Amino acid sequence: MIHTLKEAPADAEIISHQLMIRSGMIQRIAAGIYAFMPLGVRVMRKIEAIVRGEMNRAGALEALMPMVQPAGLWRISQRLARYGPELLRFKDRHARDFVLGPTHEEVVTEIARAEIRSYRQLPLILYQIQSKFRDEIRPRFGVMRAREFVMKDAYSFDRDAAGLARTYQRIFDAYQRIFTRLGLNFRAVAADNGAIGGSGSHEFHVIAETGEAAIAYCPASGYAANVEAAPAPALLDMRAPPRQALVKAATPGKTACREVAPYLSIPVERTVKSLVLAVEKKEKVEDGPEIWLLLLRGDHSLNEVKAGNAPQLSGYRFASEREIREWFGAPPGYLGPLGAREPVRILADCTVARMSDFVVGANEEGFHWTGVNWGRDLPEPETADLRDVVEGDLSPDGKGRLSICRGIEVGHIFQLGTRYSDIMGAHYLDDAGVAQPLAMGCYGIGITRLLGAAIEQNFDARGILWPAAIAPFEAVLCPMGYHRSEAVRHAADRLYATLTERGADVMLDDRNERAGVMFADWELIGIPHRLVISERGLKENTVEYQGRDDACPTSLTPEQAVAHIVGARNS
Amino acid sequence: MIHTLKEAPADAEIISHQLMIRSGMIQRIAAGIYAFMPLGVRVMRKIEAIVRGEMNRAGALEALMPMVQPAGLWRISQRLARYGPELLRFKDRHARDFVLGPTHEEVVTEIARAEIRSYRQLPLILYQIQSKFRDEIRPRFGVMRAREFVMKDAYSFDRDAAGLARTYQRIFDAYQRIFTRLGLNFRAVAADNGAIGGSGSHEFHVIAETGEAAIAYCPASGYAANVEAAPAPALLDMRAPPRQALVKAATPGKTACREVAPYLSIPVERTVKSLVLAVEKKEKVEDGPEIWLLLLRGDHSLNEVKAGNAPQLSGYRFASEREIREWFGAPPGYLGPLGAREPVRILADCTVARMSDFVVGANEEGFHWTGVNWGRDLPEPETADLRDVVEGDLSPDGKGRLSICRGIEVGHIFQLGTRYSDIMGAHYLDDAGVAQPLAMGCYGIGITRLLGAAIEQNFDARGILWPAAIAPFEAVLCPMGYHRSEAVRHAADRLYATLTERGADVMLDDRNERAGVMFADWELIGIPHRLVISERGLKENTVEYQGRDDACPTSLTPEQAVAHIVGARNS
Repeated sequence: MIHTLKEAPADAEIISHQLMIRSGMIQRIAAGIYAFMPLGVRVMRKIEAIVRGEMNRAGALEALMPMVQPAGLWRISQRLARYGPELLRFKDRHARDFVLGPTHEEVVTEIARAEIRSYRQLPLILYQIQSKFRDEIRPRFGVMRAREFVMKDAYSFDRDAAGLARTYQRIFDAYQRIFTRLGLNFRAVAADNGAIGGSGSHEFHVIAETGEAAIAYCPASGYAANVEAAPAPALLDMRAPPRQALVKAATPGKTACREVAPYLSIPVERTVKSLVLAVEKKEKVEDGPEIWLLLLRGDHSLNEVKAGNAPQLSGYRFASEREIREWFGAPPGYLGPLGAREPVRILADCTVARMSDFVVGANEEGFHWTGVNWGRDLPEPETADLRDVVEGDLSPDGKGRLSICRGIEVGHIFQLGTRYSDIMGAHYLDDAGVAQPLAMGCYGIGITRLLGAAIEQNFDARGILWPAAIAPFEAVLCPMGYHRSEAVRHAADRLYATLTERGADVMLDDRNERAGVMFADWELIGIPHRLVISERGLKENTVEYQGRDDACPTSLTPEQAVAHIVGARNS
Repeated sequence: MIHTLKEAPADAEIISHQLMIRSGMIQRIAAGIYAFMPLGVRVMRKIEAIVRGEMNRAGALEALMPMVQPAGLWRISQRLARYGPELLRFKDRHARDFVLGPTHEEVVTEIARAEIRSYRQLPLILYQIQSKFRDEIRPRFGVMRAREFVMKDAYSFDRDAAGLARTYQRIFDAYQRIFTRLGLNFRAVAADNGAIGGSGSHEFHVIAETGEAAIAYCPASGYAANVEAAPAPALLDMRAPPRQALVKAATPGKTACREVAPYLSIPVERTVKSLVLAVEKKEKVEDGPEIWLLLLRGDHSLNEVKAGNAPQLSGYRFASEREIREWFGAPPGYLGPLGAREPVRILADCTVARMSDFVVGANEEGFHWTGVNWGRDLPEPETADLRDVVEGDLSPDGKGRLSICRGIEVGHIFQLGTRYSDIMGAHYLDDAGVAQPLAMGCYGIGITRLLGAAIEQNFDARGILWPAAIAPFEAVLCPMGYHRSEAVRHAADRLYATLTERGADVMLDDRNERAGVMFADWELIGIPHRLVISERGLKENTVEYQGRDDACPTSLTPEQAVAHIVGARNS
């Protein structure tokens, strides 16, 4: 069943989506919902086999939890309200509430509550490979952000934080082996813990220019973190004393720091940008939101995850233009900490807090203050790490400077601690007979997402370049005239039998197609090795070998070709 | 993770449900929704591997279709309205209609519509192994009638009916191999086509006394059919002439034929029972339903499927007691064809139509007519095959007499024909370039249901007796004092390594449990082979072997034990 397309559909925005549709790996059934066709399933099964093998090796036990989950469990964990509309909810015929599982913390904690009695049963790691559903508001990018997708999710249960840390390391190591065996260029990075809570978390990213995530890493030390999570150092050791007087400068039409700096003939590193956030206070709704002015150096960008993690800003939103005008009397682009209406609160990024003689908006359209100094013109600010790290920042481990690359998140591991076991009452009896909450971890790998990520990392103008370990077939035999020449058919059949016998996963293309059609199809589909069998070659006892990434073919004897393909697989 | 229970929960009505819960194979998450625990998943994976292997061998290609399906496809196939509340429907966050897939005819036909262009692509068989959902009104019997369950479903596409018949036979053969390899006593039986439509259908039943289905089979010829579908012969070759006069007999308090016959001193084979059905006529709703009186011999029972298939009775229901009194002027138990209100229509089972001098209710409480005869007392009736076959009936193939056994349906194959391709526009171009509808078949195996069915067929008072091919482990090693005796630990470890090396799937029980606890656990779980390793035995170079079905253990040398276990697996 080979059915390739010359053109990708218009809704396929990224290369992996285009190539998966064009090569016939998936077919769209609805927005964000795909059928996996036989070639796609072959890749998925190979990924699953590697994941399953390494999870088993790590001592995890395979289970299978239901996709349809009682909403009551989510009510107990308090996530029914928190999860938002990505959690698909419905009623069964008896009007009982259910959800379609986007993840299984609730179900597995319920299972642990029933199954785990004693410390002697610990540690325990359960995993499953299963279809999940998240009702994405805007599903896109094919399998990369689908609504229905296949995940390997694992959950661990330990006696305490120390046990959890050991189990976490064991799974971390298994993940390293998994992504290595998949043949992908990847990086494990420290991650923000996000809404799932708990302490300690890593993401595994497939490195690809098209990745959604920015990763900061230190080539010297091996440090790596999601830019969301990488601590940004203060870029000045200490604050220099003021040298300039406070002067209001006309900056007509110059709103962005990158425009203001050259206009005032100063480096952008001397400017400070102002961002206004609103934080609704639950206890005093009638007072309206708290207004916060965040200050960042002009060339830095706000890290929204860090802002969300700052206790003062919990649950923040960006202020509306109306709120901004009401509090600052000026439009965005001319805002600053001097002369804002009380009680605006100020939070400065660590770097900004050490700047002197800097430039800020004057809260007056067309004007900025220059020569602004903490202590003299403004009180000492509250400070926090609010910015994204940038290329060249000191690595947080102090062992070099950071580079930035882009990645696609394909795995995520968390130390949940007792967040779920406390709330859902999942306890075990310790060796003194005392009930203790289970220390939990959770560990995901996006199986279907990996297909897309592998392609984003491995493609060229002609199609996909699958890593051999997960290619739908390792090798394709293209006989020239299979139905016409007995010699060709015989040689092709024999090569197929020999390769199969030696453990290779081979496709013999016995369609009645022209060489050009065959080659284009298999290059698009991305098979690593191709052998062309022709009468002309057989007369000289050769077949034409071409690796998917090779510029041109090589003549080999059939024995050499077999040895090369089998050798590549064992290397 | 071994966690067995002494007692089954109260809602476990059947033995497989009790044993699966007690042995820790499944855990209930909600009504009809189970999590499969590691031991259960091991069995499931072994079943899946056999099913996958034989489907591949039959030339089927594995796909994976989504569980969440657009309701629009079901609207086109006209099943959205027909399927009833077992089809779980819901809206996504954009209020678009979806269903949770109970089966995939619509999705696969949509795929075929897009992928199949030419006769050269045919035949094509796609299959998947996937979770399905049917919102059973009363889920019960554990995995036997669960709401979420795993199925292997396959769909075939052919050029025409002849091609479909060949593909159907190929899958039929694959199913025979599958159930044979699973180690189950099964029977392929002719089935009623039911609501899914099309022509030609077989069910595969695991034979078990507790089965829901009755199967009629002919030991002499091999004929087998679901009792629902087995044609029942007329039991009399021809009608004897009337000998008795029509006489009204008092039968006070005798309503059932089995009571009337002895009261009147006649065999029950001379009595005729009357059943009243109502058939709503769509075109003339204001006239009320048509009332039908069905006549069956007193010792026969109505086959509701056959009644439903009779064109006159399409969409029938049983009449209410009010309707019965209104039309017959008598309560149930005294009804008959003589003197019913017009226009009651009469339909006689084929056997009844050949009876003479028979007894029917007199439509008067406490009275029956005796000596009733067709032609003389009643007009010749419309006839149909309306009864279940019984033990001793002639086999429909004329080659012997029928026996009845009970079975659990675990597979079902259908020739759908063009029912879906016509309505959904799934065509291919034949070799003359003319568009033709695809001839389709569908083929299901209930993977999770098979776990239950295998247990219903294979259990004893101590627990499950898994067939070796699908046991969670083939053999268990029970060392007596693994943590105490170095000799025992060493011997157990070596046996484990040897057996594993020779391809056996072995469990070494290194828990610190008493022999009795170990034995009871593994007998409940149903492992086929058990080896007990003790210091006493090792002194004589023996281990104790006991097959799960053996009455007592045998002393073997370790080498003999290995040879026995490995030999059993290859036999």
